Amino acid sequence: MKKILLLGAGRSASSLIRYLFDHATSENWHITIGDISITHLQPLVEPIAFAEAITFNVHDAAQRAKEVGQADLVISLLPAIFHTEVAKECLKQGKHLITASYVSPEFLALHAEAQQKNLTFLMESGLDPGIDHMSAMRVIKSIQAAGGTLTSFKSYTGGLVAPESDNNPWNYKFTWNPRNVVLAGQGTAKYIRQGQYKYIPYHQLFQRTETLQVDGYGPFEGYANRDSLSYREPYGLLTIPTMLRGTLRRPGYCEAWDAFVQLGLTDDSYTLEGSERMTHRSFVEAFLPAATSSVQSMAERVSLYLGIPQEGEVMQKLEWLGLFEETPVELEAATPAQVLEKILKAKWTLTPGDKDMIVMQHLFEYELHGEQREVCSTLVVLGEDEVQTAMAKTVGLPVGMLARLLLQGKITHRGVVIPIYPELYEPVLDELEGYGIRFVETEKVVERVG
Amino acid sequence: MKKILLLGAGRSASSLIRYLFDHATSENWHITIGDISITHLQPLVEPIAFAEAITFNVHDAAQRAKEVGQADLVISLLPAIFHTEVAKECLKQGKHLITASYVSPEFLALHAEAQQKNLTFLMESGLDPGIDHMSAMRVIKSIQAAGGTLTSFKSYTGGLVAPESDNNPWNYKFTWNPRNVVLAGQGTAKYIRQGQYKYIPYHQLFQRTETLQVDGYGPFEGYANRDSLSYREPYGLLTIPTMLRGTLRRPGYCEAWDAFVQLGLTDDSYTLEGSERMTHRSFVEAFLPAATSSVQSMAERVSLYLGIPQEGEVMQKLEWLGLFEETPVELEAATPAQVLEKILKAKWTLTPGDKDMIVMQHLFEYELHGEQREVCSTLVVLGEDEVQTAMAKTVGLPVGMLARLLLQGKITHRGVVIPIYPELYEPVLDELEGYGIRFVETEKVVERVG
Repeated sequence: MKKILLLGAGRSASSLIRYLFDHATSENWHITIGDISITHLQPLVEPIAFAEAITFNVHDAAQRAKEVGQADLVISLLPAIFHTEVAKECLKQGKHLITASYVSPEFLALHAEAQQKNLTFLMESGLDPGIDHMSAMRVIKSIQAAGGTLTSFKSYTGGLVAPESDNNPWNYKFTWNPRNVVLAGQGTAKYIRQGQYKYIPYHQLFQRTETLQVDGYGPFEGYANRDSLSYREPYGLLTIPTMLRGTLRRPGYCEAWDAFVQLGLTDDSYTLEGSERMTHRSFVEAFLPAATSSVQSMAERVSLYLGIPQEGEVMQKLEWLGLFEETPVELEAATPAQVLEKILKAKWTLTPGDKDMIVMQHLFEYELHGEQREVCSTLVVLGEDEVQTAMAKTVGLPVGMLARLLLQGKITHRGVVIPIYPELYEPVLDELEGYGIRFVETEKVVERVG
Repeated sequence: MKKILLLGAGRSASSLIRYLFDHATSENWHITIGDISITHLQPLVEPIAFAEAITFNVHDAAQRAKEVGQADLVISLLPAIFHTEVAKECLKQGKHLITASYVSPEFLALHAEAQQKNLTFLMESGLDPGIDHMSAMRVIKSIQAAGGTLTSFKSYTGGLVAPESDNNPWNYKFTWNPRNVVLAGQGTAKYIRQGQYKYIPYHQLFQRTETLQVDGYGPFEGYANRDSLSYREPYGLLTIPTMLRGTLRRPGYCEAWDAFVQLGLTDDSYTLEGSERMTHRSFVEAFLPAATSSVQSMAERVSLYLGIPQEGEVMQKLEWLGLFEETPVELEAATPAQVLEKILKAKWTLTPGDKDMIVMQHLFEYELHGEQREVCSTLVVLGEDEVQTAMAKTVGLPVGMLARLLLQGKITHRGVVIPIYPELYEPVLDELEGYGIRFVETEKVVERVG
């Protein structure tokens, strides 16, 4: 019997738990689910012999050592900041580890030791990062195998609301960690375009979008992620002239989000004085220049300050959020970003029956036999409801599948690994198709070159 | 005999050294000047019996211990990051310390121990911070002594170029650390206005200026400093409804500087790829969206992107800097801010004979006996030439005067102290007047209240 320790069983874990349970009998697995609170897990594990739920505190070193020691494989869906502690315990006790989080510099520092101890620390194994790597690498390898040379690769992913549940002027609801949505894009976005490095400061990011089309789902807009450059090496695209990774939203979202950025509402670097006494309205007031006349409405002042039409769609989106109303914020020592998150949560939370939607689109340009060609590879996944979300599915299933491959001894890469190798992505992408997670590819010849 | 150890003898030290030499005989001082390089100091100290110059490396713990051990008072004009090491040595060996730098949190942590050991660590003793505290406190105390209640305090300082040397379209030259000028205002500016806390994000800072008038010198514009709130407590103004500290420039400077901010050129948080191969032109290109037509000039693209008139003053200022020319940058692994600093240095450096100018203006509003009154207190100091600058004078002289008071035993405050106490500022402000550093005060009754 193989023992799996799954740490962190929040919203994103539902599909992963279902996958692990579905394969537990045939694979002879025992599954221990550790979370800070397990009341929501009890009804799930009680009828099941091969699974148990335990209250798990990642800061308890003794418990960490004991539980990791009993496992053959650790899967961590904990917040990324806790992974290093878990990973160090895995190193000490010689256990494999899988997470859906980015490889941090602290994590990369564990690579040599993990490799030397014959361990696999499989990171970036969810959706984005995860499925994006796997699906892109499959196309890249096939273009290169045919003798093609990639000249451009752009890749966008969005966690959005499904069309049938899309009933607000932002065309957006939170389907994932709201805090990450509020802080998205902070820092400087870096990419390369026709051999020229490009840098977009945060305060310009949501003004510099590109429009994308997805068959059957209409237009989207994409803004650049912070770092589009660091994957050139793992993807084997060190000399590619154009490469950009980005995030998708529905048209109009970015222009309105930019109003928050311009005002300063997304700042997470300081706490507001007296935030516990603030209302939505006084929160906005703190970022506005003094009124020039007492008859000006706050909406007027905002539109003048930001230079946006007073009756336009951006102002309508802001008004719809209740941003100018005397609603109490009720947060102590909060940063602007925390106040904004609370305002948004009241309006953007999935309600019962709401379905989410994942959209991913890769755009490749390459030269082959004197022809300039384009490939567009698109994935759309719809959620079942507000619990079995497309997000939970696309994050959890690849993690589960990679866990199965690892326990079956089918993954030979050791050290800190991301799923860019055929032995990882081929079986996972094939298995995902059985769950309706399938890329649609279109290809065309743009022009004959030379 | 009292021994003074002066650490750091860069551009700002000239007036301080002159002051110390002028008083050495009457005060019976011996002065040791330590700097990383002393060739420029040799001609200064060689003819003088009571002074010597030594090569001083702040990272050399043994030398630090030896030199501090021999001193009665240490004055540090080193870059602020080195002060803590010096201060710890002073603590260990029981020596007083004076600097012109801000009290950092690490410094504040030394307060109790310094106090317990009967030591004075006198910080913020230069111009800004320094003379600003002293001159403001004198007015505040006098208003309060007369029974007045302060309702507003705004204070602006600028290190600028004197009118007779003001011969470029920016009306600005570097008279102080260029790096600090490039990074000025990063973060969020915080102040309070009519009881309402206000926050200005960096990307709005240079658009939200106020205009000030200085008799005989015309208009200036001021932008808010990062933190106008933390001096409310030391100034005894905890309940004042309006308080703002800011920086002065000539009109038009801020609007043009904002173009750098909007483009992203002042960012110091990452290094540019291939900066060693960049030109001014390709540096700017890295921050622009792709050209929509091949006939567009770069100036056209910049003006369109930023939404500023193509033939306007901002674009003229940018063109005058050579920002769009193929001039090599010649900096390795540089941040955008470092590249911008190099471009500006080529144009904004004082040339022989150039004079600088310090302008400081405090604007007080207060109520007294049912009247609303205003006091405007203004200081203008002109430099003698590009070495004996107004900046060196206004930073160095108060440091020297406070050093004299401290060695005479006339300063009784112990611990980490800033010059907000009459026993410090009264004699210094009086002595400064003898050097032509004199505030001009105008007062008026605005209206009768109630």
